[in-house]
Amino acid sequence: MATIEYPAPIKTLISHLKQLPGVGPKSAERIAIWMIQHGRELTGQLSESLAVAGETVGECDICGFFAAENEECRICHSSGRESDSLCVIEHPTDVLLLERSGAYKGQYHVLRGKISPLDNVGPDDLRIAELQDRLTSGDFKEIILALSADVEGEATANYLAEILSDFGDLKVSRLAHGISVGGGLESADELTLLRALEGRIGMR
Amino acid sequence: MATIEYPAPIKTLISHLKQLPGVGPKSAERIAIWMIQHGRELTGQLSESLAVAGETVGECDICGFFAAENEECRICHSSGRESDSLCVIEHPTDVLLLERSGAYKGQYHVLRGKISPLDNVGPDDLRIAELQDRLTSGDFKEIILALSADVEGEATANYLAEILSDFGDLKVSRLAHGISVGGGLESADELTLLRALEGRIGMR
Repeated sequence: MATIEYPAPIKTLISHLKQLPGVGPKSAERIAIWMIQHGRELTGQLSESLAVAGETVGECDICGFFAAENEECRICHSSGRESDSLCVIEHPTDVLLLERSGAYKGQYHVLRGKISPLDNVGPDDLRIAELQDRLTSGDFKEIILALSADVEGEATANYLAEILSDFGDLKVSRLAHGISVGGGLESADELTLLRALEGRIGMR
Repeated sequence: MATIEYPAPIKTLISHLKQLPGVGPKSAERIAIWMIQHGRELTGQLSESLAVAGETVGECDICGFFAAENEECRICHSSGRESDSLCVIEHPTDVLLLERSGAYKGQYHVLRGKISPLDNVGPDDLRIAELQDRLTSGDFKEIILALSADVEGEATANYLAEILSDFGDLKVSRLAHGISVGGGLESADELTLLRALEGRIGMR
């Protein structure tokens, strides 16, 4: 006797959904069933927005943030942002994290990764040549390296600091390490506490 | 100064993804970005399988389980399943849960819900007339009511039991209540324990 299974189109949909990040077999099944039960209109909308996003979204040649085909880059063509500071980040999504903090109003440069020999990612795989071009042609006074606080992030920051020494009067900084706002000491690991102590700030 | 946001196609995609069950704003963003970074091939596949599933999957006229347009119902047209027992369930997805238990080899009948006055679901909104038709024309000897163990499920079971009394020699049963296999008593709530005691099974 054959086992009862979902019809083929549902099985295909589930197998595709399972590939999404954070979506396991059970979620994939739940989402697929939900989609089918909520009818053609919604499935059609989602399927179309997916196709449109997949086809039209690329990256800005300058900063590396997402850009739609028929839109200007929302950072590079935004008026009123400071043009003399440049924040170097690993992923395009980091832009929105920093923007939401409201603490930065300058330009961005997305590396699209970090140096990681174990994953076969070297300097040539990152947007470092593009960074050098921008620094040569632009008029930047300050570079902020907003990279991960892990081994690969630090290696990338050190590598960039080396390269940036060619640009004499450029101010280079990295993000501070420390305990989270609102979190007690117990929420920070040892290394973070060490960094928080090292970076302690005088109060009087 | 304008806030930096994702390009329009990404925002549309995120807003559609947010409507899926179990997908919050953060997951929707993560999934959307992942889809875009994994390129057109994968987005195209998913978007197509979604459209195909949405357009071609309906329900079997007989049992109410999912059926693709060009496929026979996998339950009703399966050879070797018992034709004289019928299991009444609320949702098409319950079929697979029961199938995975391996304990049932008969036919199914999906009600597509349960009687729930608070949600404006009455007997006429369920596939009860279809059930009566099947019982009249078919040759069933046993009906198992595999409905939820909540107030609405019990109400539905009682309503069905009333209707089924018209079919004289039909054996009608419902699922047993009790503690979960592998779980201690502490994992069951009071009502479940009460039911487990009431339904205790003699060992000698």
